Amino acid sequence: MALTRWIGIDPGLRTTGFGVIDVDGQKLTYIASGTIESGDPAKGLPERLGALYAGVKEVLETYHPQAAAIEEVFLNVNPRSTLMLGQARGAVIAALVSEKLPVAEYSALRVKQSIVGTGRATKPQVQEMVKRLLRLNRAPGTDASDALGVAICAAHHAQMPQALSAALTLTKRSK
Amino acid sequence: MALTRWIGIDPGLRTTGFGVIDVDGQKLTYIASGTIESGDPAKGLPERLGALYAGVKEVLETYHPQAAAIEEVFLNVNPRSTLMLGQARGAVIAALVSEKLPVAEYSALRVKQSIVGTGRATKPQVQEMVKRLLRLNRAPGTDASDALGVAICAAHHAQMPQALSAALTLTKRSK
Repeated sequence: MALTRWIGIDPGLRTTGFGVIDVDGQKLTYIASGTIESGDPAKGLPERLGALYAGVKEVLETYHPQAAAIEEVFLNVNPRSTLMLGQARGAVIAALVSEKLPVAEYSALRVKQSIVGTGRATKPQVQEMVKRLLRLNRAPGTDASDALGVAICAAHHAQMPQALSAALTLTKRSK
Repeated sequence: MALTRWIGIDPGLRTTGFGVIDVDGQKLTYIASGTIESGDPAKGLPERLGALYAGVKEVLETYHPQAAAIEEVFLNVNPRSTLMLGQARGAVIAALVSEKLPVAEYSALRVKQSIVGTGRATKPQVQEMVKRLLRLNRAPGTDASDALGVAICAAHHAQMPQALSAALTLTKRSK
């Protein structure tokens, strides 16, 4: 399987996490991770969304990923928070698709299942597993770790059709 | 006051309305209006947001507005609808700010007050007043009319400081 560079995104209006990994078959290589800040909350919403949009574009221009994965957002109990988070996610997805990147979506539950093995994993558990899977000396911050987690989850799922066809081939052979 | 070209936007995930007007002092001139469709709802959300983003960019490249105004979205009783509408609005704002346009926000209430004189105006009333204010033979569709309404509202508000300073000058003179 050819090497694919994935960017994972954990969207948020105040802070959006990103993580970039290279995926070559089973091998995962850490490239970069960090956060994009929308800046002073006293600024207007359009300006803050503009900062997120520009920040994502800058990361794409720096690392040139070939595919993107973004965490689905949960419905906050506060509808206004849901609306704000939705707008941040919309601006981030706009930045990704403006660079013609295919964008996959994964729920936080699915990411945790994929990384830790259980949907009830805590944030420190996700950080620890991301650190191990990418052979890092230190776990990145929670937003960056969550973003790397989405990228790893996407890499696992992208390999599934291959894994499945390999399994089917084995089944056929064993007959 | 110099001529300013405004674009007004009524954001929606399925259909986003746009309206472009030229504003020269009190004179409003209709330039264009219409709708941008996100396409088949069976497509993934990123693709649909991409269609809105690209559609807005195309309108900006065609008409070169100097300022943008967008309707604030209401909190739907259905949180999932709020989330979807928020994401559409985020993608549209990203397209506007990516072209360095200043973006003003107005609530539907304020738009109706500005156009019809009452926040309880119906959609047909907004359409009728937009038609009259822009001296059109026919009222555009509701989404396009709402978008033109936001642009007209923004034009009114942008003139307010000037109107206010003129009023103050008159007050001083009359003393």
